[in-house]
Amino acid sequence: MKAVGIVVEYNPFHNGHLHHLAESKKKANADIVIAVMSGHFLQRGEPALVSKWARTEMALAGGADLVFELPFAFSTQSAEIFASGAVSILDALGCDSLCFGSEVGKIDAFLETYELLEKRSDDFVQLLKTALSKGNSYPKAVSIAFQKIASGEKTLLDLSKPNNILGFQYVKAIVQQKSSMKPLTIERIGAGYHDESYHHPSIASATSIRKNIVHEQNLSSMKHYVPESSFRILLNYKQTYSAFHDWELYFPFLKYSILSKTLTELKEIYEMDEGLEHRVVHHIKRAASFHQFLSLLKTKRYTWTRLQRLCTYLLTNTKKEEMASILKTKKAPYIRLLGMSGRGQSYLQAVKKQLELPLISKVSSYSSDVLEMDLRATNVYALILNEPAATEFMKLEYTMPPIRYGLP
Amino acid sequence: MKAVGIVVEYNPFHNGHLHHLAESKKKANADIVIAVMSGHFLQRGEPALVSKWARTEMALAGGADLVFELPFAFSTQSAEIFASGAVSILDALGCDSLCFGSEVGKIDAFLETYELLEKRSDDFVQLLKTALSKGNSYPKAVSIAFQKIASGEKTLLDLSKPNNILGFQYVKAIVQQKSSMKPLTIERIGAGYHDESYHHPSIASATSIRKNIVHEQNLSSMKHYVPESSFRILLNYKQTYSAFHDWELYFPFLKYSILSKTLTELKEIYEMDEGLEHRVVHHIKRAASFHQFLSLLKTKRYTWTRLQRLCTYLLTNTKKEEMASILKTKKAPYIRLLGMSGRGQSYLQAVKKQLELPLISKVSSYSSDVLEMDLRATNVYALILNEPAATEFMKLEYTMPPIRYGLP
Repeated sequence: MKAVGIVVEYNPFHNGHLHHLAESKKKANADIVIAVMSGHFLQRGEPALVSKWARTEMALAGGADLVFELPFAFSTQSAEIFASGAVSILDALGCDSLCFGSEVGKIDAFLETYELLEKRSDDFVQLLKTALSKGNSYPKAVSIAFQKIASGEKTLLDLSKPNNILGFQYVKAIVQQKSSMKPLTIERIGAGYHDESYHHPSIASATSIRKNIVHEQNLSSMKHYVPESSFRILLNYKQTYSAFHDWELYFPFLKYSILSKTLTELKEIYEMDEGLEHRVVHHIKRAASFHQFLSLLKTKRYTWTRLQRLCTYLLTNTKKEEMASILKTKKAPYIRLLGMSGRGQSYLQAVKKQLELPLISKVSSYSSDVLEMDLRATNVYALILNEPAATEFMKLEYTMPPIRYGLP
Repeated sequence: MKAVGIVVEYNPFHNGHLHHLAESKKKANADIVIAVMSGHFLQRGEPALVSKWARTEMALAGGADLVFELPFAFSTQSAEIFASGAVSILDALGCDSLCFGSEVGKIDAFLETYELLEKRSDDFVQLLKTALSKGNSYPKAVSIAFQKIASGEKTLLDLSKPNNILGFQYVKAIVQQKSSMKPLTIERIGAGYHDESYHHPSIASATSIRKNIVHEQNLSSMKHYVPESSFRILLNYKQTYSAFHDWELYFPFLKYSILSKTLTELKEIYEMDEGLEHRVVHHIKRAASFHQFLSLLKTKRYTWTRLQRLCTYLLTNTKKEEMASILKTKKAPYIRLLGMSGRGQSYLQAVKKQLELPLISKVSSYSSDVLEMDLRATNVYALILNEPAATEFMKLEYTMPPIRYGLP
């Protein structure tokens, strides 16, 4: 069986994802689709709207055959580490190809760009330094440096677009990890990543869906934009837990976390760099909401996303020291199965013996600092739920078997 | 002017305190009363019902002339450290005597007991060890060891009574610190320390008053048991902040604090001894309230109070390391004035130049690890208030001048 790998958050799973999943399978000429999906905290430094279990269900109902967890140590990181962790998992699973959505939609653009940047890496590093020294944010500086390198060269890649950046990092990770996976890309359709309102008949960004169902509490508004299965699963989640997970609900804990730490302890938090702890302490006392806090914290130098990630690390008490030891290789130390279809199960049985990483099905029988971090993240993620729901939610990490979709 | 020192919590200030204050002044033949009062967290490991500012007002209205803060590093400790910190402050202020309430009410009983235990300290330590090794709690073991020492000797002191224990430690600290203060005691009247219901026409324990106004929300019930000034101040506090401070309100933060820490970090918390961290992690996941958590945590070995203190240290993120460095001398490094009457002000002006410790009137111009701990405790204490009240409350530490009672 031939497998195509995809890297996803499904926050929540919508029609655009359905399209990407089917197109990836077609383009790769694959028999099954393997999704590596972020756990409870996501790349932009925010809690997922609903649990990884609910998102796994949505993924399986939408056509994924196997869903594996991208651990917290990778899922909450900037593009390079995020991509590296995801590629290491898909590679270990023996995927034939990795297919990602991008603004450009042409794989040659990524390959050429990678070669160009490899060839001129010293120049690139120098240009990046210069751009950073002018007070630009990191993504902005990368984009400036790249444009200078690319001018005069024939390249189609716009490295200021978020999906192109991620795509570039997938390609880079595949080459650097000497993976045999073939990189593929398809063009994203319909809605921009950050769009907040609906303006396509059936495709909307996850951002706009979240905005409508969380802030405006208008659940039926998403009906046109998500598969019926997603709609049902989201409705059910809201009924079971009385809440969607949103940063604002965690704000009291974030505030407490900051105010109960000394400056020395704050400096030990991952991504607390360049004296940021002083800004954090100063502004947290004045902020009445998460949004207000981020607005106060924001400068030209730090993107909103970078600061949200810092808040995620504060909330989950993630230290520089533990992250440094985990990220020595930038590769996942294990693969954790969240769910499977019948075909997914057959594939897994076929490749089980050649897997390059240990496969975790029971959390309590495996020990790893990466996994410890995930369990801690889940505990924190559950704290906004009422009791006894919160306690039951935490237990799921130990008791929940992989979700079986369409299996007896 | 002659000053008598008293050590108080005033949680809240009631008629029994009014009596004790007036009697102390009379017994000591003093011109003014100096109260050393716990800040926002108290000796039994719980948040004070209302802020130290409101309690200072009650104290001044009830007849205290000077109110100084007993820092968190001492106020949340078992009797020995609590008493040592308080005595060091009263001594530095030049008090002529220290007067405490006790069950026995006779100072000779304390002096004789101190001498007896000094004389037979080796025996006492051995008996204490034996009693502890049988699984008794620390206070229980002290009481057992003491009874064995005292049998056959003429002593009136019952060292299983909470105020006798504290009194003994005051006397011990006075002797060991070579203070010239004269120890005095008066018998406590009317209500037992732990009584939860009203059964005297005008004297009730602070415990019973708290129970009635917090859990039963019956504010008018305390009218007979507290001075009119206390009644007004408590009513006003509830109106301003919409809450009395109670452990249950902090429980979500306590739970978060525990679940976001690694076992290694939990072991670094002050008083987390003998593998308690495993019990703490096990039970916190199952508890839906603070009371339930403590009930689950409780064993013969650990008193409720000992475990509440541990929770206070968890909540305020107080580490063994920082406490060890603070407690090297068991003496306060400064004195912080919270409030004064006209006579108190005159006294302070008279003794100002002979003070043995720096007098803090402005927090921002003084640096000390003891003070840092107090500021952190206040931040945590404020977190249950709504915004903007919480932010304003935190600022008070920097902006609030000592309360002036009856002064122009």
